[in-house]
Amino acid sequence: MDISHQIPPRDVQTGAFVLHHAAREFPPGSVHLAVVDPGVGTHRRALVARCAEHLFVAPDNGLLALVVAEREHQLRHVTHPALVAPAPSATFHGRDLFAPVAARLAVGFRFEDVGPPVTDPVLGPVSSCTAVPGGIAGQIIHVDHFGNLVTNIDNRKVAALEAPLRVRLPDGRTLNGLCRTYADVATGEPLALIGSAGLLEISLRDGRANSSLGLARGAAIRVESC
Amino acid sequence: MDISHQIPPRDVQTGAFVLHHAAREFPPGSVHLAVVDPGVGTHRRALVARCAEHLFVAPDNGLLALVVAEREHQLRHVTHPALVAPAPSATFHGRDLFAPVAARLAVGFRFEDVGPPVTDPVLGPVSSCTAVPGGIAGQIIHVDHFGNLVTNIDNRKVAALEAPLRVRLPDGRTLNGLCRTYADVATGEPLALIGSAGLLEISLRDGRANSSLGLARGAAIRVESC
Amino acid sequence: MDISHQIPPRDVQTGAFVLHHAAREFPPGSVHLAVVDPGVGTHRRALVARCAEHLFVAPDNGLLALVVAEREHQLRHVTHPALVAPAPSATFHGRDLFAPVAARLAVGFRFEDVGPPVTDPVLGPVSSCTAVPGGIAGQIIHVDHFGNLVTNIDNRKVAALEAPLRVRLPDGRTLNGLCRTYADVATGEPLALIGSAGLLEISLRDGRANSSLGLARGAAIRVESC
Repeated sequence: MDISHQIPPRDVQTGAFVLHHAAREFPPGSVHLAVVDPGVGTHRRALVARCAEHLFVAPDNGLLALVVAEREHQLRHVTHPALVAPAPSATFHGRDLFAPVAARLAVGFRFEDVGPPVTDPVLGPVSSCTAVPGGIAGQIIHVDHFGNLVTNIDNRKVAALEAPLRVRLPDGRTLNGLCRTYADVATGEPLALIGSAGLLEISLRDGRANSSLGLARGAAIRVESC
Repeated sequence: MDISHQIPPRDVQTGAFVLHHAAREFPPGSVHLAVVDPGVGTHRRALVARCAEHLFVAPDNGLLALVVAEREHQLRHVTHPALVAPAPSATFHGRDLFAPVAARLAVGFRFEDVGPPVTDPVLGPVSSCTAVPGGIAGQIIHVDHFGNLVTNIDNRKVAALEAPLRVRLPDGRTLNGLCRTYADVATGEPLALIGSAGLLEISLRDGRANSSLGLARGAAIRVESC
Repeated sequence: MDISHQIPPRDVQTGAFVLHHAAREFPPGSVHLAVVDPGVGTHRRALVARCAEHLFVAPDNGLLALVVAEREHQLRHVTHPALVAPAPSATFHGRDLFAPVAARLAVGFRFEDVGPPVTDPVLGPVSSCTAVPGGIAGQIIHVDHFGNLVTNIDNRKVAALEAPLRVRLPDGRTLNGLCRTYADVATGEPLALIGSAGLLEISLRDGRANSSLGLARGAAIRVESC
């Protein structure tokens, strides 16, 4: 199944987000192939991760960061001669290396035979939200197809705060309270809610929050008790 | 089979058009899943339609309007507990409600068990063309991938007009006669023809009629005997 | 398998490139369907090509040019009544003609029965690179998803030149030497390399060579011994 061919070129963070949230919907035994690979042809490693009975094939550049975060997992460096083509291209390992590895795993090649364990993967700029006095400080980690701004502030941590809540944007503007869905506010109004990924999101009813609010990935977002 | 993930956000009318014209090419017994759902998480109903031995799963917002128009059909409101997840998200019913319903129907869940019949679906702003003295008045209902302007003026109604015909655009410009295909005019010239959906279309040879003619969905188009 | 629905409208050359390079990755016995068809509804022929145990269905407008170039092949004009719908639309032969032909071939319809042999296909503006004193003259034939500029200068011909090499752009700028992969130069720097299609490419590390260098399809590129 093709999940997406629309990750922006070289955007490992968007790839990591889409991979993590798509993979959660697949059953145990699934093999996932993800390639956003600006370091193709260099010495960056090819990895296979095993996590919650799923296998993931990806370059070692942070693309697996969300998949393996806070969960038991094992990683292997792809070195087995049966998995590595004798003369791959230097610029298209999606075709010449990663896809063949995923195919072999899908027909039964054993994870333990992939290559040596890896304990120092590149995990990239994935950040966690942090507790601050009276609330939680996080940041926007993903802008979705609709322009919604997804933060790294987890539902469960928000649930531990004392209501009423407000969400503070980088310029000091605040959104009062968490909505349940987009239609809870009038057309064109901004809102905050817990999105379908279980993360705090900033949205705009019937519009694009990213352009309307002038916010992008990396912007600091706080949620705090009033 | 994925038909399209490129319906513009919240554009129910484009979704309705693509759904209708794609579904016609599928065999009896097909189950179609369509989600353009700006009212996600509100009280808008989830529907299943049965029409010409096809099943359609969609929100009750007009997305089914063209599928059920002028054809015998039954509608049901999705309420059966086996179909409704106990705690769906409030912002992604494509994942949490509609897709599971379509999957269950595809493996044999009975249409009659979906929930109570619906007789008052939201049919949205679908308009029909109307007879006017000397011709037919309609409007543009879809702009396709190539910039072609598809109207709601049906082939069979056009066939009942006395030739020769001309097509009148909103600003008074006219196109004389109906062409058979794009190459019947010179490069860069506009033309009218009966398109592959069986509807009158305005096109531009080797170009985009929408931007070149400055026309969009909703624009009034007439076809009339000269 | 869907390879691409993102060929720009009427861009036969991009279609020919994507078809050729995707088809190479498929096994013998594959049936490929390609439709970029600005001449739909005219007298342009529908073709089936057989080449290296693959079958290709496409309009006769150059879309098959790269597939059949420099390789043994046979071509047939689709005329068998079982393959031609009695009343196809005049504007969507992808749906009404080419796809049904591909489907019938996939379930065993014999190539020899498709219709009469064709010996004069339209091959379009496909150009080969040529030897010039001290090097090879070619041109950009494709701009890929990443903005890389792919030329028609073949790896094997480049290998026959005496190193060191330099690549000359239309405005006289030169790139010294061939790199192996993008990361061989600093971010934002242009480079030349043999890409994954086995052709000379001009790229930009972490950027888009087409917009940065102001080059597009058709631009003249030379590679020469220093």
